[in-house]
Amino acid sequence: MAAATLVANGDYAAVNTPTTGRYAAVYSEVQNSRLDHSLPLPSVLQSSFTVVDGPPSSAAGNPDEIAKLFPCVFGQPSANFVPGESTGDLLAQGLKIGVVLSGGQAPGGHNVISGIFDYLQDRCKGSTLYGFRGGPAGIMKGKFVVLTSEYIYPYRNQGGFDMICSGRDKIETPEQFKQAQETAVKLDLDGLVVIGGDDSNTNACLLAENFRSNNLKARVIGCPKTIDGDLKCKEVPTSFGFDTACKIYAEMIGNVMVDARSTGKYYHFVRLMGRAASHITLECALQTHPNITLIGEEVAEKKLTLKNVTDYIADVICKRAELGYNYGVILIPEGLIDFIPEVQQLIAELNEILAHDVVDEAGVWKKKLTPQSLQLFDILPPAIQEQLMLERDPHGNVQVAKIETEKMLIQMVETELEVRKQAAAYKGQFKGQSHFFGYEGRCGLPSNFDSTYCYALGYAAGALLHSGKTGLISSVGNLAAPVAEWTVGGTALTSLMDVERRHGKFKPVIKKAMVELEGAPFKKFVSMREEWALNNRYLNPGPIQFGGPAADKVNHTLMLELGYQI
Amino acid sequence: MAAATLVANGDYAAVNTPTTGRYAAVYSEVQNSRLDHSLPLPSVLQSSFTVVDGPPSSAAGNPDEIAKLFPCVFGQPSANFVPGESTGDLLAQGLKIGVVLSGGQAPGGHNVISGIFDYLQDRCKGSTLYGFRGGPAGIMKGKFVVLTSEYIYPYRNQGGFDMICSGRDKIETPEQFKQAQETAVKLDLDGLVVIGGDDSNTNACLLAENFRSNNLKARVIGCPKTIDGDLKCKEVPTSFGFDTACKIYAEMIGNVMVDARSTGKYYHFVRLMGRAASHITLECALQTHPNITLIGEEVAEKKLTLKNVTDYIADVICKRAELGYNYGVILIPEGLIDFIPEVQQLIAELNEILAHDVVDEAGVWKKKLTPQSLQLFDILPPAIQEQLMLERDPHGNVQVAKIETEKMLIQMVETELEVRKQAAAYKGQFKGQSHFFGYEGRCGLPSNFDSTYCYALGYAAGALLHSGKTGLISSVGNLAAPVAEWTVGGTALTSLMDVERRHGKFKPVIKKAMVELEGAPFKKFVSMREEWALNNRYLNPGPIQFGGPAADKVNHTLMLELGYQI
Repeated sequence: MAAATLVANGDYAAVNTPTTGRYAAVYSEVQNSRLDHSLPLPSVLQSSFTVVDGPPSSAAGNPDEIAKLFPCVFGQPSANFVPGESTGDLLAQGLKIGVVLSGGQAPGGHNVISGIFDYLQDRCKGSTLYGFRGGPAGIMKGKFVVLTSEYIYPYRNQGGFDMICSGRDKIETPEQFKQAQETAVKLDLDGLVVIGGDDSNTNACLLAENFRSNNLKARVIGCPKTIDGDLKCKEVPTSFGFDTACKIYAEMIGNVMVDARSTGKYYHFVRLMGRAASHITLECALQTHPNITLIGEEVAEKKLTLKNVTDYIADVICKRAELGYNYGVILIPEGLIDFIPEVQQLIAELNEILAHDVVDEAGVWKKKLTPQSLQLFDILPPAIQEQLMLERDPHGNVQVAKIETEKMLIQMVETELEVRKQAAAYKGQFKGQSHFFGYEGRCGLPSNFDSTYCYALGYAAGALLHSGKTGLISSVGNLAAPVAEWTVGGTALTSLMDVERRHGKFKPVIKKAMVELEGAPFKKFVSMREEWALNNRYLNPGPIQFGGPAADKVNHTLMLELGYQI
Repeated sequence: MAAATLVANGDYAAVNTPTTGRYAAVYSEVQNSRLDHSLPLPSVLQSSFTVVDGPPSSAAGNPDEIAKLFPCVFGQPSANFVPGESTGDLLAQGLKIGVVLSGGQAPGGHNVISGIFDYLQDRCKGSTLYGFRGGPAGIMKGKFVVLTSEYIYPYRNQGGFDMICSGRDKIETPEQFKQAQETAVKLDLDGLVVIGGDDSNTNACLLAENFRSNNLKARVIGCPKTIDGDLKCKEVPTSFGFDTACKIYAEMIGNVMVDARSTGKYYHFVRLMGRAASHITLECALQTHPNITLIGEEVAEKKLTLKNVTDYIADVICKRAELGYNYGVILIPEGLIDFIPEVQQLIAELNEILAHDVVDEAGVWKKKLTPQSLQLFDILPPAIQEQLMLERDPHGNVQVAKIETEKMLIQMVETELEVRKQAAAYKGQFKGQSHFFGYEGRCGLPSNFDSTYCYALGYAAGALLHSGKTGLISSVGNLAAPVAEWTVGGTALTSLMDVERRHGKFKPVIKKAMVELEGAPFKKFVSMREEWALNNRYLNPGPIQFGGPAADKVNHTLMLELGYQI
């Protein structure tokens, strides 16, 4: 592979060194086989197309406030590509476009970039694509690489974000916006594509507003990325990466299920990444049919306590023991305890006490807890109590994220089952095994769906910028149909927004799409879960296949939300 | 799918209920696609074949003692199948054969059974195959199922052992051998296939000896099973399951590597199943090129201390920090601390102290430790100290298996790096993430290699029994060649044996095949590890493919041991 042409500022060498790995890399057979995997485009993108604007848009909530926050870009119509004379020709010469990856990894990010690149190559000769390095900080610090055909090639259909890496910085302060403007001016940018989640797309819209209000020509388009699946709406049916990550987790869960059934003596408690919403857990449940699945949104809606959750698990285990099954698989969303109000209350009280009081060994400090919180604290396993007291973040706060919920639940269930055993209400054997699946799924080789979806998102982002659009999120729809029939366009980012009051000010936010308890995926799950609890209906999806009959299957959540049966 | 015809003893219904899941199961597309995957047979098994005996065999060690322990079956020649007039015809009527799965799960077990079944169908009409349920206990208690074409079909090329389940019992006492004899007589068994690891195959040989010395007609053939890869010899180049399990772990490790490189801020400490030998860890290293790989056998050979291991990891991390890399991937075999002599010493002392002394809070009890053990205890992270003191098995012993080595090493490395930072010898940032991959790999859908290898092992086991052989292990060789050219036969189990002295008596054991420090796989690793440590050469094998160019690839350990380059 030829070394890439690199153009960047003085900091470049130092920053770049750690991430040129791909050039020296030997690829595995499967990685290699993916490099030249050809990606179909929606037919509207295959020949000349024009943009049709829809009606003016509003906001997801508080449109007046959103309108005030985004005077330039609020209310824009959504854009839909239809066959017709190309509007891209309006701009006579090549474009200068930047692209940035923002936030956590998700399979398919590289394909969004190659989609943008190929659009520019196909439709806008003489263009330049800048890859900002290390996330939004790359924009602010002007750290970038010029993406060439040779540079991009080794990343086609590959997982990871290491082509240009990502970062979690946000462009927030006036000074930071100024830095972004300087970079845009210095590079003479016509446009920027921000590939990110809800926060990053909010940031993209602020940048679009900022650039326009400062009369910069640079336009900004967002792309929906997150394995968590919580950035979606009617026009953006799914975020990329969700499909692949869930399939990877489901492969592992399926294997663990066959092991559980073969061994006959373990309950596997599997915690799955996804702190805010439980989409991943729900999708994995639909793919694998576990005995128990906890969905954070339901736990919150029903205001369940930790004891309720423990009892629910113990109840199923007891019923299964009567049927002769002393094994099972239980799925737990990473953010479970964030959904339990009493836990939040306890943590708030602990933070207060730890900040101001002496924690004595005799436990006198506990008297400061409200009775409800004290009761909860006392039923927690000792190891978790200790973790809550000892491990604090730099601000002295309890580190909720570090609590290994699956291990906590194993201990609580074990204690509960012991009580029931004493009362002769349980005669089985219980052994828990804990698992956490997270990092394994964020950078896998993207599934055929994510590969194709991302490529279309990127291609569309290029086309939207070429058409002079800003403040839109790349939108590819009709995803249950063959790729040729997918719809393509852009949706006003402000139309996804509401405001939150923070420090006395309105802040725009794209609301996270939580699991809808009235939605088709959750309802499907509810209709099956009792069957799955007692009668083993384990499904083993197996490893993601890139060829053969299963290769093009789309995840269940998306199909159900689009109105199909699974 | 038609319900299977079940014939069993009175206990059957109660025992069987929990494991008839497959009949009601909906299969995933990938599972379904595997059901009718056709398996090639070595050409010698495709038409009529005859058995050629080799020279008499000896033992791996202490042949005189082995000869005494196995007066009937010791010294048998190995059997090789060659094209020729079928010797199977010697037995005029159908055979009654039993099969049992013994010990931990490994991908491919079901295919051994279908191989035996198909042999009997193809070559020995009118035979009956009994599947003993739940491992050797099924033989002793006479719990079985008659395996029919319909019963077996849903398990073809599927992972898990749930067709008849497994168990860890051994047939050891005179009474237990008596029970086994009774079952053999009651079912009029002509033969038994024991699918298991080193212990189970030792047990198979004892059973062969016992049946023969008691003039039972039942013969016994073993099959080499274990994901750990530690049951192998010249004639049995690999145990089944190793290939698939390593590929599953390597998929996850490869994904984590891409994540590490993309994120740029985590060291992932990955512990891999395999308590006795480090073959899995070595194979995964060859497949993925991690920055650091610990091989238990090398740690033992070099008599490394925990401090040595910690320093080695910290050294690499410091060098990488100087190159600008504050991330990496480290592979750790499950049994690492079993290979560190000082840890064994400490644990022995702790067991003694905990059994006889009061452990006071002030730590006076520590004076009972030898100075060396005290020093080691004091450098252990507090959480590990506590685990050692608190978590005991039913005999009151420290539970070594419960120590999460990867977490312990993260804490020790963190402490060491802090010291170096104070001394200005390290300027990087260190954040550890821990992983344990184990249960995910034991029951995955078998790779094409394991599917085919197991089927040949089973088919050969059927042929060996049909030829009147006993006390042999099914042996399929020349595995780097196309399947047609694979060699097939059986090897005297006594030839793999040595004796160990236990309770004043000689016990026969098949020695575990450890990682050979002079062997090709380890040497290959050593020749690469410095390069892998500092220059990132991560390889992402991707998910196991059942079609396409990568589908038939064999694991590196096997290829290297067979003299090939990778």
